[in-house]
Amino acid sequence: MKELEALLGSIEPADKTWEQKAWDRLHSQIRPLDSLGSLEAAAARLAAMKRSLYIDLSRKMIFVMAGDHGVVAEGVSAYPQEVTPQMVYSFTRGWATINVLAKHAGSNVCVADFGVVADMPAEWGIIDAKVGPGTASIAKGPAMSRENAIKGIMAGADLVRKSCLEGTQLVGTGDMGIGNTTPSAAIICAFSGKSAAGFTGRGTGIGDEGLARKIAVIDTALAVNKPDPLDPIDVLSKVGGYEIAGLAGAVLGAASTKTPVICDGLIATAGALIACRLSPAGRDYLFISHLSVEPGHVAMCEMIGLKPLLSLNMRLGEGTGAALAMNIVEAAAKIMAECKTFAEAGVSGKDE
Amino acid sequence: MKELEALLGSIEPADKTWEQKAWDRLHSQIRPLDSLGSLEAAAARLAAMKRSLYIDLSRKMIFVMAGDHGVVAEGVSAYPQEVTPQMVYSFTRGWATINVLAKHAGSNVCVADFGVVADMPAEWGIIDAKVGPGTASIAKGPAMSRENAIKGIMAGADLVRKSCLEGTQLVGTGDMGIGNTTPSAAIICAFSGKSAAGFTGRGTGIGDEGLARKIAVIDTALAVNKPDPLDPIDVLSKVGGYEIAGLAGAVLGAASTKTPVICDGLIATAGALIACRLSPAGRDYLFISHLSVEPGHVAMCEMIGLKPLLSLNMRLGEGTGAALAMNIVEAAAKIMAECKTFAEAGVSGKDE
Repeated sequence: MKELEALLGSIEPADKTWEQKAWDRLHSQIRPLDSLGSLEAAAARLAAMKRSLYIDLSRKMIFVMAGDHGVVAEGVSAYPQEVTPQMVYSFTRGWATINVLAKHAGSNVCVADFGVVADMPAEWGIIDAKVGPGTASIAKGPAMSRENAIKGIMAGADLVRKSCLEGTQLVGTGDMGIGNTTPSAAIICAFSGKSAAGFTGRGTGIGDEGLARKIAVIDTALAVNKPDPLDPIDVLSKVGGYEIAGLAGAVLGAASTKTPVICDGLIATAGALIACRLSPAGRDYLFISHLSVEPGHVAMCEMIGLKPLLSLNMRLGEGTGAALAMNIVEAAAKIMAECKTFAEAGVSGKDE
Repeated sequence: MKELEALLGSIEPADKTWEQKAWDRLHSQIRPLDSLGSLEAAAARLAAMKRSLYIDLSRKMIFVMAGDHGVVAEGVSAYPQEVTPQMVYSFTRGWATINVLAKHAGSNVCVADFGVVADMPAEWGIIDAKVGPGTASIAKGPAMSRENAIKGIMAGADLVRKSCLEGTQLVGTGDMGIGNTTPSAAIICAFSGKSAAGFTGRGTGIGDEGLARKIAVIDTALAVNKPDPLDPIDVLSKVGGYEIAGLAGAVLGAASTKTPVICDGLIATAGALIACRLSPAGRDYLFISHLSVEPGHVAMCEMIGLKPLLSLNMRLGEGTGAALAMNIVEAAAKIMAECKTFAEAGVSGKDE
């Protein structure tokens, strides 16, 4: 707990004076006032994070955090649990969607095991941050102990913080874990106090019967565990997951080094939501990449208070939305740095 | 007219058999079915355009087409007309927002004069496609003759077609022209038969009084000109603009070489709408980059029948939305080409 408190204490809020400097520069550039909408807003936020108007985001890293979930025994997923390590292997070989999109974004991919059931060979070269071999079923009791929740957060934070201190300038977060839309939906239910029906989606593609079962399982998990919405660690340990702990830590680790971090869809945002509840200042360093098709995601975004940059009807995970949004965030930084002002370009201003 | 008919006749619809081949491949790749939403839909459309699943879009060109508008005399814009050539000059020097975003997208920028009032020095290196020195005020009569409308379309088509035949693999379209949200809004009014109030926005940033004047001017233009919604050339010539003719031609020219073309916001989409009305097959090659803040844009997108890829509260023009969307379209092509299948990667399929 002491370690976590030290981490949270090390996160400084973004500097609003730099946000104002950013707006002054953006408003002096050769285009109509505020005509770049979300792009300018992103640029101003970046300035406040980095205390600069000239921000290099070329060194990028997407952290794909993997974990398994005991709740899959309740029949909440369309795919078998063996797919988790199979996909992790694919990530290490460059075969998966995230590899293609990360390469396209100019980003590296770092794959880390926070709680996959299977033991994965060392030669795969993944980061070993395993807290345990899959969580317990949230339908029967807590997913993990409070100690393990903190352990997962700290492992995620340490991994990302180290990478940022070594030169990573823009962080993306993504997930892999069969069954992990179930704990993610449970987390938004726990924080909102609402039942699962409005927040539960088809995940990897369950049918109507499976969806009804998944909703019942989440409602049961909430009734059995009674997570305390005012205690983010309680929510995470009772109805979360090991990779979700890592994803929360990733946001905190990036924020502790003043590095912008873009979270992916439902699962990564569940982690980000835990992080923002633990550290309101941490939220200052966060972008939400895209609005997921999963119904719980919009409520998560509203709870965090950030609008997703993209909306492409995606629901894959792996960090794929984060990879696509990196292009937008980097574009925002470049606009602020590179576009000339009316005075510099000799362009006439607005008629008064 | 004969030339235009030949151009329209040369546009072959996209090949739906390739769309099916694309879906077969996309559905065999290691991720849940349809989990990439708009990205997969874009990939399938690209396959149908290019008759291939392996599509290289690395050579990109954004055509920024400039023109002036007689209607600015009615007080519809916040900026003076001299800004058009000043901004054109900025584009040639690499100073403007489009230059920054095009470079970020890995795209070149081609600037063309379709009807700027000012004569611009040859040493600026812009393409001379001038049809006339600014249109006539649409509040008083037609913007241009029918012949000049066709001339503008053909000049745009020839420019883009030549570039595509020389190797451009992905086209973006953008505009520059003080006052050009007014003819663009008039075009959607003409096609929809509705009055201007619902489709008219603040453009570069006029106040309430200016907005009321702009709406009245557009309604007057519609009453004076009575554009025939069933005749796209009539609409373009009566309430359009020279650069809008060029932007319509750009879509047709790209389509005639089976090259994907991404249009920018309100003005470029007005041109694209004219193109789609002239050639339903041309629409097969079109992507709409982003949803503009300008209120007429959503109706244009619906009329074309395509959903914009991005929605970032932008309203700048210059091709800036097209530049950002290039990253998404190229990502779609790369996913389809590069991601492994379940069989190739040895990943287990869905539980049945």
